[in-house]
Amino acid sequence: MTIGIGLLGLGTVGAGVAAILATPQGRHPLVADLELKRVAVRDLSRPRPVAIAEELLCTDPEAVVDDPAVEIVVEVMGGLEPARSLILRAIAAGKPVVTANKAVIARYGDEIAAAAKARGVYVLIEAAVGGGIPIIEPLKQSLGGNRIQRVSGIINGTTNYILSRMADEGADYGAVLADAQQLGYAEADPAADVQGGDAADKIAILAGLAYGGPVDRAGIATEGIDRLEARDVDYAARLGFVVKLLAVAEHVGQADDGAQQLDVRVHPTLLPKHHPLAGVHGVNNAILVEGDPVGQVMFFGPGAGAGPTASAVVADILNIAGIRQVGGPAAGLDPLLAASSWNRCRLVDGLDSHHRNYLRLLTRDEAGVIGQIGSCFGAAGVSIQSIVQYETDGPGAEIVVITHQVQEARFRGALAAITALDAVETVAACLRTL
Amino acid sequence: MTIGIGLLGLGTVGAGVAAILATPQGRHPLVADLELKRVAVRDLSRPRPVAIAEELLCTDPEAVVDDPAVEIVVEVMGGLEPARSLILRAIAAGKPVVTANKAVIARYGDEIAAAAKARGVYVLIEAAVGGGIPIIEPLKQSLGGNRIQRVSGIINGTTNYILSRMADEGADYGAVLADAQQLGYAEADPAADVQGGDAADKIAILAGLAYGGPVDRAGIATEGIDRLEARDVDYAARLGFVVKLLAVAEHVGQADDGAQQLDVRVHPTLLPKHHPLAGVHGVNNAILVEGDPVGQVMFFGPGAGAGPTASAVVADILNIAGIRQVGGPAAGLDPLLAASSWNRCRLVDGLDSHHRNYLRLLTRDEAGVIGQIGSCFGAAGVSIQSIVQYETDGPGAEIVVITHQVQEARFRGALAAITALDAVETVAACLRTL
Repeated sequence: MTIGIGLLGLGTVGAGVAAILATPQGRHPLVADLELKRVAVRDLSRPRPVAIAEELLCTDPEAVVDDPAVEIVVEVMGGLEPARSLILRAIAAGKPVVTANKAVIARYGDEIAAAAKARGVYVLIEAAVGGGIPIIEPLKQSLGGNRIQRVSGIINGTTNYILSRMADEGADYGAVLADAQQLGYAEADPAADVQGGDAADKIAILAGLAYGGPVDRAGIATEGIDRLEARDVDYAARLGFVVKLLAVAEHVGQADDGAQQLDVRVHPTLLPKHHPLAGVHGVNNAILVEGDPVGQVMFFGPGAGAGPTASAVVADILNIAGIRQVGGPAAGLDPLLAASSWNRCRLVDGLDSHHRNYLRLLTRDEAGVIGQIGSCFGAAGVSIQSIVQYETDGPGAEIVVITHQVQEARFRGALAAITALDAVETVAACLRTL
Repeated sequence: MTIGIGLLGLGTVGAGVAAILATPQGRHPLVADLELKRVAVRDLSRPRPVAIAEELLCTDPEAVVDDPAVEIVVEVMGGLEPARSLILRAIAAGKPVVTANKAVIARYGDEIAAAAKARGVYVLIEAAVGGGIPIIEPLKQSLGGNRIQRVSGIINGTTNYILSRMADEGADYGAVLADAQQLGYAEADPAADVQGGDAADKIAILAGLAYGGPVDRAGIATEGIDRLEARDVDYAARLGFVVKLLAVAEHVGQADDGAQQLDVRVHPTLLPKHHPLAGVHGVNNAILVEGDPVGQVMFFGPGAGAGPTASAVVADILNIAGIRQVGGPAAGLDPLLAASSWNRCRLVDGLDSHHRNYLRLLTRDEAGVIGQIGSCFGAAGVSIQSIVQYETDGPGAEIVVITHQVQEARFRGALAAITALDAVETVAACLRTL
């Protein structure tokens, strides 16, 4: 039984998908049932990395969606529009959609999910987070018996590549970024990666699945790596930590009205060297899920690239093809695969959340400074794990503090008092610490 | 819509499952639809770790299977019989089965799969490998677009605990095993764990899923950690390696008759320190899947324990409950979830496979020995990465060799020549190396 596939976009991911469909031998036998019926491209005359029969190509993506031979619409064109409209058009036509487009899902996920639910079709997004790593499906189908306490991940390969090189080489952020851009690991405009927006898009998606309800993407506190200095990576290493850009979604409670209260954030984070995520290097991604009763499970792999992303797209296509054999196109939806929402989720005020902190202060080089800083923390009830003075090239001193777990508001209070000290010149860095 | 669950066994895993079903709040909403209808226990009077209504308990497992209110049979009693017969009885009654019983699946998987296929019911086994780690479902449903090149894993927690402690403490195998037994990390009869049989059971299951056809369990070359010496763990560390008990299933080719040729084996292995599996410590498990085009993806987590295993069992129950909403009990099977076989798999002769090797020789302490050993390898066409002489307490010398990748038959030939040298007293250790 053949199933007709329509492809919107034939960039690296689209070509990767087409390559899998064209060579079913040695893959799951269902792959042989998938037949590419029509492909929308921007420019018919451009050379392709994969051989596609000329007559399948067109420049009108709506024609692909509308083609009666197309039973599953695969959106791998990227960008917000026309991707969003085409996804909605496919849903309206009762066609299931597979998309790798995290930006569309993070921004229009509610609208798309509502339309999909009303029409009774699947919209699957395994490729939107973590490239080739199976994480969406395990969250939807394998961990449903758990109360998820926390989802934390390294889900942006570009920044992890930069951070890995900063740690290995002691290099500056700017130098590594420039090199990464030349090597093709970072975009010409790296803002979405290095400022944390891409990771925030993805953690919004993971949080929505883990906690069963949409998360306010705009409310996610997001801090990138673009102001991170080499010396903080160095000091972190000396203290036994690795700096990673972490995206975290944590369950902190249930509101009186029944809403799930979540702390969702993206920020550079000091991880203890033996933390499972600390060993994730280069462009790899990893997602750690903590739940009751499963404990900690981690999913690791290539976070981007044509092959891994195509693997995830084909996984979704196969799932739709497989479940179609259960009850035919007119059957009901599997609630796990469809992953409709059942909770309301609300982001908490970050000031209420609890963290450990790494703080680097530039101070005057005089006796008693450490005592004054310690007293400010003590007065605010913030307990300290370590406070170390490092030598500097200049005239002043550099003091690095690592606190124990503390409420953010309380920490901010202590920090204000410390900043007001005569001997303290600058708060040079303030980073979250696990 | 309630779905009736029958539980065969109320040990730690069964109690963990019952605890999840009894507290649906905060879990996937489908959990609330699962209702425990009947539970088979060995002894009605024994105290339970979880509160179960008296009238649900009985001592006759067949009555649980036969109970019309039981729609899904969950086998968590362990052992070969009566588990196998009860699973077949449930299948014959058209009831889907969830089991955590790797021993039954590894030995009677073919029989059970054939019966399930003929009757059109699911037999799901997520808990049989890797405890709480979602690995069965990703292999079945998320990686189907790939040609799987290799599945390798640390899938026995007891041996990984022992090896981790041997590495950390420089301790002897026997001492750590005794301590592990006292702490409850190893059984009173540890044979199945330390001799590799448990890992072989599990890799047989993973290979069958990855390559789409049953694997001859009895043909899996299996070597445990019970003869591993502390000095080899130490030398490995000095050379940049970590010793792990690895279970590996590798695709090596396709026979003329179309059968998939697999190299499946279990043995202690030297892993380079930066290998993704090298950082898996204690009772944790991890499975690394390598495929085209996904690359390397790894699944990590707690390999055993009541909570993690119960999480996996409930995942399977939820999948059956979810898919039931698609087309009702009379609908067809999802071929991905059902995971029937589509390939014939054949194990290759180990002598044809290629590996790197670690070799420790006890020799006379005289000039020219390293040269003689090097010559034997050279004559057999085995190239060497390193050859190092270590000091011993006794009169002789100890020489450690690490080879490059070499065909096993060729390596064995060189080894025979080396053993025949006058200066070589014993082959003290011979370990596979990645």
